[in-house]
Amino acid sequence: MGKGRLEAFSDGVIAIIITIMVLEMKVPHGDSLESLRPLVPVFLSYVLSFVYIGIYWNNHHHMLHACQKVSGRVLWANLHLLFWLSLLPFATGWMGENHFAAMPSALYGGVLLCAAMAYWILQQAIIAADGPASLLKIAVGGDWKGKLSPWLYLIAIGASFQMPWLAQAIYVGVALTWLVPDRRIEHALERR
Amino acid sequence: MGKGRLEAFSDGVIAIIITIMVLEMKVPHGDSLESLRPLVPVFLSYVLSFVYIGIYWNNHHHMLHACQKVSGRVLWANLHLLFWLSLLPFATGWMGENHFAAMPSALYGGVLLCAAMAYWILQQAIIAADGPASLLKIAVGGDWKGKLSPWLYLIAIGASFQMPWLAQAIYVGVALTWLVPDRRIEHALERR
Amino acid sequence: MGKGRLEAFSDGVIAIIITIMVLEMKVPHGDSLESLRPLVPVFLSYVLSFVYIGIYWNNHHHMLHACQKVSGRVLWANLHLLFWLSLLPFATGWMGENHFAAMPSALYGGVLLCAAMAYWILQQAIIAADGPASLLKIAVGGDWKGKLSPWLYLIAIGASFQMPWLAQAIYVGVALTWLVPDRRIEHALERR
Amino acid sequence: MGKGRLEAFSDGVIAIIITIMVLEMKVPHGDSLESLRPLVPVFLSYVLSFVYIGIYWNNHHHMLHACQKVSGRVLWANLHLLFWLSLLPFATGWMGENHFAAMPSALYGGVLLCAAMAYWILQQAIIAADGPASLLKIAVGGDWKGKLSPWLYLIAIGASFQMPWLAQAIYVGVALTWLVPDRRIEHALERR
Repeated sequence: MGKGRLEAFSDGVIAIIITIMVLEMKVPHGDSLESLRPLVPVFLSYVLSFVYIGIYWNNHHHMLHACQKVSGRVLWANLHLLFWLSLLPFATGWMGENHFAAMPSALYGGVLLCAAMAYWILQQAIIAADGPASLLKIAVGGDWKGKLSPWLYLIAIGASFQMPWLAQAIYVGVALTWLVPDRRIEHALERR
Repeated sequence: MGKGRLEAFSDGVIAIIITIMVLEMKVPHGDSLESLRPLVPVFLSYVLSFVYIGIYWNNHHHMLHACQKVSGRVLWANLHLLFWLSLLPFATGWMGENHFAAMPSALYGGVLLCAAMAYWILQQAIIAADGPASLLKIAVGGDWKGKLSPWLYLIAIGASFQMPWLAQAIYVGVALTWLVPDRRIEHALERR
Repeated sequence: MGKGRLEAFSDGVIAIIITIMVLEMKVPHGDSLESLRPLVPVFLSYVLSFVYIGIYWNNHHHMLHACQKVSGRVLWANLHLLFWLSLLPFATGWMGENHFAAMPSALYGGVLLCAAMAYWILQQAIIAADGPASLLKIAVGGDWKGKLSPWLYLIAIGASFQMPWLAQAIYVGVALTWLVPDRRIEHALERR
Repeated sequence: MGKGRLEAFSDGVIAIIITIMVLEMKVPHGDSLESLRPLVPVFLSYVLSFVYIGIYWNNHHHMLHACQKVSGRVLWANLHLLFWLSLLPFATGWMGENHFAAMPSALYGGVLLCAAMAYWILQQAIIAADGPASLLKIAVGGDWKGKLSPWLYLIAIGASFQMPWLAQAIYVGVALTWLVPDRRIEHALERR
């Protein structure tokens, strides 16, 4: 079974997720600059989530590029990842509307944590489907970013209730470390 | 006429259906964990429908893979299936907001029943278009899951008014039997 | 310039249009069968518009299949058609919520009329781009359906204010004549 | 890394943006022609934004056609452009609902300005990735439209507060100069 349709479907879902998030930014009723002020935290959380979805699309793109065989398990692991990403607009909206309050910030971290674990599961499913000569396995290597991120999300979830600014700082920081696309996969593909 | 665009359009519609369902989970006004509680049934019905749409996408994927010729009847049978799937977000939202009450649960089962019948009609249209040597006909074989599911949905619709928990149990149970993608088609393709 | 991306973009827009129409069917607050009753006209107008969008997708599919060259004029004629189709969810929602009242029914016919004219303009743009040996020109031939439909829409717009049932009957009737995909194009392609 | 998926993802996002803008045109409650009147400015700003998104899709299409290599920087420059375009539905809705008032008109110009700069950045990223023999660099040439547009948007933003009609006239005027797709790229490709 080809991976073209898997990519197309994932692209469709990710494109919709990244775009419907903007619908949480409701058009205000007044026409003054003041009337935009309550939207500032909504806008900031939109930017953060846009970057996260962009990172996932980017790395998903690279991961599927290295994938050689699409099994039933890969299909479902991919849907599982899309499920958690589909909850990001909700978590983003809740966090933005409540000005980065404790519980919404923790939920946001929880969704990021689940998405990160779903990404890891998908990676393992592809490596298992490709067998011992898996290109992705070689490319991923030590995967320190993939291993570190969940722990940082856990710390951020805890910090949400004590030092909300730390939680946001971690969310932004993790995004920055991921902004660079996964060159390991590009290198592994070139070497082949 | 090629089937590429039929797949692309179906993927687009299914991707949108699976994603707009999440819009039924309205961002709550409070920022406490309590304010999320009314959303629990909405979330659970979202998970159920996400899995159902995932199953349909998965099997649709396999079915079109075995399809050799796209006729006008196949195009319309496909749109007919997409029509019933497009009603799932509505049925999901109504069932979730009313905490799995009788009538919404029955409607949910009704939409699942119509989608299952539309899927069967599409299968027959593809087999008819492919002619006597239809790969799909061989692959589908006895199709006990396809034959059993509508009866189970009918029982669930009836149960909605007497034993609501039984209706939900059937919806979850049928989804579980379908979670495994249709290996018959994969096998038939390999054997060819 | 290839027509693949033109098809993909059009498919995307049409897939979204056909799916967001269902968002006009707001989840009712009660959980009784009664609470669904006000949605019946909304549902009926959704079915009608779903069929119309399906027809446009189907014929667009066939038309682009016969198209040999994509010029700048074709791109804009295509966007012009998508513009009118994008207004159909609005017209559908207004007509459904007002139980097929005069003015909303007339607006619905107006949008159908503009979409039909935009389709004709796109057809002419493709024929002009393909030059004298245009496959589409031969395939379209007399095009009695394309020539008759706008006049029927005009009659329906007028009838909306006098005999609303006649307007709806015309909308349904025109849809039925178009349900059969355009075999002329299939035949012309086969003959080549 | 191929540019196919970059095109597909961009098409998906742009298709969604162009379509969800229509959701800002809320179905009115009355069924008279009067009840449509408040929607006239919303409709006009929808038309304007539809044309702008169409222009961006069109030129994006041409630009990627001339692009020879997709680097990580190109991927992110593309997401950056999509980010600003994704804010257009919000700016459109705010401007339309406030009948082209000063602040919403200025914000609309601001989003157009940022999108224009993001487009320029994407162009530079593609030229940098393609190296000294970049086809796009030759094709773009003097790029007077790309250089002039941001200054016109700046003038329009200033004019929003003094002469609102001038701001709108500039938005319409710039759109008209861009309506013609970028023939320089088509010519450069043909000459090759």
